[in-house]
Amino acid sequence: MNPRVSGIAPSLIRELAAKKRPTSIDLGLGEPTLLPRIEYFERALERVRENGVKYTANAGDLELRELIARHYAYPAMERAENVCITIGSQEAMYVTLKTLLDPSRDELLVVEPAFPSYVKMAALEGIGVRIVSMLDDDDFAFDAERIIAAIGERTRAIVICSPCNPTARVISRGAAETIVDALSRRGGEPIWLIHDEIYREQRFVDDAADLAMLYPHTIVANSLSKSNALTGLRLGWILGPGGFVEQAIKVHAWAASCADTFAQYVALEIFRSPTNLQEHAPWYREQRARVREMLKESGLPFVDPEGAFYVCVRLPGGMASLDAANDLIERFDVVTIPGIAFGKSMEGWLRLSWVMQAERVRDGVARIAEYCS
Amino acid sequence: MNPRVSGIAPSLIRELAAKKRPTSIDLGLGEPTLLPRIEYFERALERVRENGVKYTANAGDLELRELIARHYAYPAMERAENVCITIGSQEAMYVTLKTLLDPSRDELLVVEPAFPSYVKMAALEGIGVRIVSMLDDDDFAFDAERIIAAIGERTRAIVICSPCNPTARVISRGAAETIVDALSRRGGEPIWLIHDEIYREQRFVDDAADLAMLYPHTIVANSLSKSNALTGLRLGWILGPGGFVEQAIKVHAWAASCADTFAQYVALEIFRSPTNLQEHAPWYREQRARVREMLKESGLPFVDPEGAFYVCVRLPGGMASLDAANDLIERFDVVTIPGIAFGKSMEGWLRLSWVMQAERVRDGVARIAEYCS
Repeated sequence: MNPRVSGIAPSLIRELAAKKRPTSIDLGLGEPTLLPRIEYFERALERVRENGVKYTANAGDLELRELIARHYAYPAMERAENVCITIGSQEAMYVTLKTLLDPSRDELLVVEPAFPSYVKMAALEGIGVRIVSMLDDDDFAFDAERIIAAIGERTRAIVICSPCNPTARVISRGAAETIVDALSRRGGEPIWLIHDEIYREQRFVDDAADLAMLYPHTIVANSLSKSNALTGLRLGWILGPGGFVEQAIKVHAWAASCADTFAQYVALEIFRSPTNLQEHAPWYREQRARVREMLKESGLPFVDPEGAFYVCVRLPGGMASLDAANDLIERFDVVTIPGIAFGKSMEGWLRLSWVMQAERVRDGVARIAEYCS
Repeated sequence: MNPRVSGIAPSLIRELAAKKRPTSIDLGLGEPTLLPRIEYFERALERVRENGVKYTANAGDLELRELIARHYAYPAMERAENVCITIGSQEAMYVTLKTLLDPSRDELLVVEPAFPSYVKMAALEGIGVRIVSMLDDDDFAFDAERIIAAIGERTRAIVICSPCNPTARVISRGAAETIVDALSRRGGEPIWLIHDEIYREQRFVDDAADLAMLYPHTIVANSLSKSNALTGLRLGWILGPGGFVEQAIKVHAWAASCADTFAQYVALEIFRSPTNLQEHAPWYREQRARVREMLKESGLPFVDPEGAFYVCVRLPGGMASLDAANDLIERFDVVTIPGIAFGKSMEGWLRLSWVMQAERVRDGVARIAEYCS
């Protein structure tokens, strides 16, 4: 067997999720509880009735690629050739890392706290990783100077998830411009920015940077999973410069051939009126307001959520997050994700998601407050 | 960029397909022209209406995994834990090669003529490849002695596609037993057999080996693409020993997270009555009979098809297959695939698929016969 595979530990998040009981209040969920609009599926079904579900081109349906490129309209990424349709944003990120980085010399800089997939994918590919941690006493704000200072000789790409899973912070235009200035001033081969934009439609602050608007060496990964409650549809995309996307399509082609044609039919329905991407946004705004109130009332210290559908809660001094998460499941029947799953910098914290009904979230927060007191 | 990616040439098959005109007779097609049964999609839609399309476990829906394992009932592979649901058989093969082989020491033995994906995937992973060619004057029959003789010191796995794309040959039980005997008699670490079974439901001879029935170190890749005209659904699976599948699930998880839940709903409908897998088989049997008659009448030398939906036709002495394929598109408006796309051993041949309407296939064969004469 490939030792790089056997060396990868199973997912801590999945292990904790497996302890969930039918009665549990699940604040660990990484996916919407809303249902998707059924009309997209009904129209996709009509296309199956007529045309079946044949392979698309490796890079995906040409009209869909064009619609996506035009909708985001990132500079020099506005054409179909700038888009590769992928198996969710997970494969978008996997293909991006694999295409961009030469394991024999390049290093990936991961801004933590972060979803563990970037580090695990890099390990699977034998790509070196350097971590730069945002600070908990700064509420994990994106700190441009810390990120710039962490760039090493071999750094070839920096991955930033904004809005961030798990911190729910958003990178400001000021911070993004500082990073882009520093990268642009360097000579030699460019250092790439990889923007994981999967929570783009859950942004609750105005000062939010689109990295691809600011820097030409940006690659964007995104999907319909969170915006339209379509996690299981596995429909995502890579947006980037044409020369990069051309190479990425080859990796995608040999790893997966093409994305599901049915899922692409659904995506076409959505992107023909891209306001559909915002159809769940009002619910998230209202729910966020409710959750902030609950947390303030609970007395738990938390990082004010600027995006995504998470909130990070600080445990009482010195408490190990994995122990707390296990206690909370076993004794209080509440699922949470321990901060340690997202890097050492989040030890002593829990990530809560707040996609359940408000009353269930309220009940869960109350139990956590009871546990912490 | 990763030099392993930029080093991979684009697909010759896709390049030729791109030359197709609206009027062309397409005998290059690698997918069914039949339509899938719409009832599967209608029932899947009802499940979306009720439950949405949430993530499944990384390895796929538990019931689906159980149904697949029980249907094939390969020894010691009869339980859910023996199955990982993948993005078609392409990702099944990709994940299998990546999980099984250590690029620093292991070598893959590819039985050619073969679909180019095995060699390209191995190149992408930096895995060494050794080729063993079946002989054209033996009509590309699976030759157990040649395969055994080609095993090297570093050979860790042998990939066999049966029924074979492109040769349409099927490995006999006798040939399979000879290989299995030789592998079993060796000491030390096992050499694995990887059986690409994607054309399993298009077998037209009785003497067809299921490698997993004969040898415990077998991994099977398959999908619904060809059996049920669901190429675009991207729903496949890996079947193998539990210890292997456990590792493969990690690769699949980090590369793609999970297969499309909607596609899994469709697959559940099919596997609840696995005779559904054979629903298109009568059409293929009848079409094969028609195509054999056409070819005999045409005077073209061909390899009698035992499976899949291809037939290999020999070009007149010394003719380069790529030149012939280009001529046929440009001057005769017929798309074919040059043998060279499947390895040097198939130079001087063309692969024809025969999934178009019989009259179109007849017309295409006539034009090829005219060109060759």
